[in-house]
Amino acid sequence: MKPDTRTRMIETTARLVQTHGLHGVSLSDILSESGAPRGSLYFHFPGGKNELMQAALQSGIKEATDALRDCLAAADNPADGVQQFFRVTARELVESDFAFGCPVAAIVLDRPDIESELAKTCQAAFDQWARMYRDALMAAGVPPGRAGSLALTVLASLEGALMMARSEQSAIPVDEVGKEVSELIAGALPSTA
Amino acid sequence: MKPDTRTRMIETTARLVQTHGLHGVSLSDILSESGAPRGSLYFHFPGGKNELMQAALQSGIKEATDALRDCLAAADNPADGVQQFFRVTARELVESDFAFGCPVAAIVLDRPDIESELAKTCQAAFDQWARMYRDALMAAGVPPGRAGSLALTVLASLEGALMMARSEQSAIPVDEVGKEVSELIAGALPSTA
Repeated sequence: MKPDTRTRMIETTARLVQTHGLHGVSLSDILSESGAPRGSLYFHFPGGKNELMQAALQSGIKEATDALRDCLAAADNPADGVQQFFRVTARELVESDFAFGCPVAAIVLDRPDIESELAKTCQAAFDQWARMYRDALMAAGVPPGRAGSLALTVLASLEGALMMARSEQSAIPVDEVGKEVSELIAGALPSTA
Repeated sequence: MKPDTRTRMIETTARLVQTHGLHGVSLSDILSESGAPRGSLYFHFPGGKNELMQAALQSGIKEATDALRDCLAAADNPADGVQQFFRVTARELVESDFAFGCPVAAIVLDRPDIESELAKTCQAAFDQWARMYRDALMAAGVPPGRAGSLALTVLASLEGALMMARSEQSAIPVDEVGKEVSELIAGALPSTA
């Protein structure tokens, strides 16, 4: 089934923002690449470009969050779950010709007004992902303090690895960093786990 | 001594690109914020805006590279040197009100044409930094293969931590991740070192 206009606009916006950054995307690019007539912006998004940007960001965050939840739930332990999520992300990156990385990263580095809804959505996504890693680590027996700093490290290293992969046009940094981080987690798990 | 016009233009461009991304900076912003007359662009940078962008990127890379070299050289071992570099970077971030992070990150995520000089300079900077970490690790006795993946992990985790710090407007992610990465390195060093 062909996606409807609203969905096409959201997907096109997500792709363009991830490719060119927050300030590198114009409304006419979005309309022409999604094949949407000009009038459809305010029909589908009464709040205009801001509302469309926010919808695109939330759609990207939901996709990443679902994939992370699946990886952590399917694995026997968080070391394997995290490595699997690095793999899934690396595949997405290669399949999109290194355009799709983290839906939040491109926006954070283009520094939207810190009080804006976009900035707050980015902060909330990082918080949610860190909490998911921390909860998985604690459920596997890692003490809360260590689980917190380890969770931030997993998130940071994935974000950085995606950036390097994009620069190198190669998934190797994501694979290599994924292995190291997985070993770091394995070392933090209680030996009886 | 007041910096000369050329230096002011480079510094202003570096700050604006790090703050707003590659596509969020116009020539008139650069001229007005650096107080440079319009004619001075082609006088100081015959290649125009591209040459100015490239000069600003190289100046930021040189500053980061010098600071990293100092931290690694001053420390007894790479675990301490890396943690110190995380600290120096966190301080820079706070002092710049979370504008200055990595000079390369904002450009990579705005995805300049991959064949462009800017993109190549970004790739070369990541390569150089990874090599500096790897050499320091090998000099401390870490086997080459492990030193390579560990070096990528240090670089990735710093890049990611800077991004998270910017989003949270807090240096805590850089401090916490710096400690974890320092421990990861310490665990990879031969116990006799």
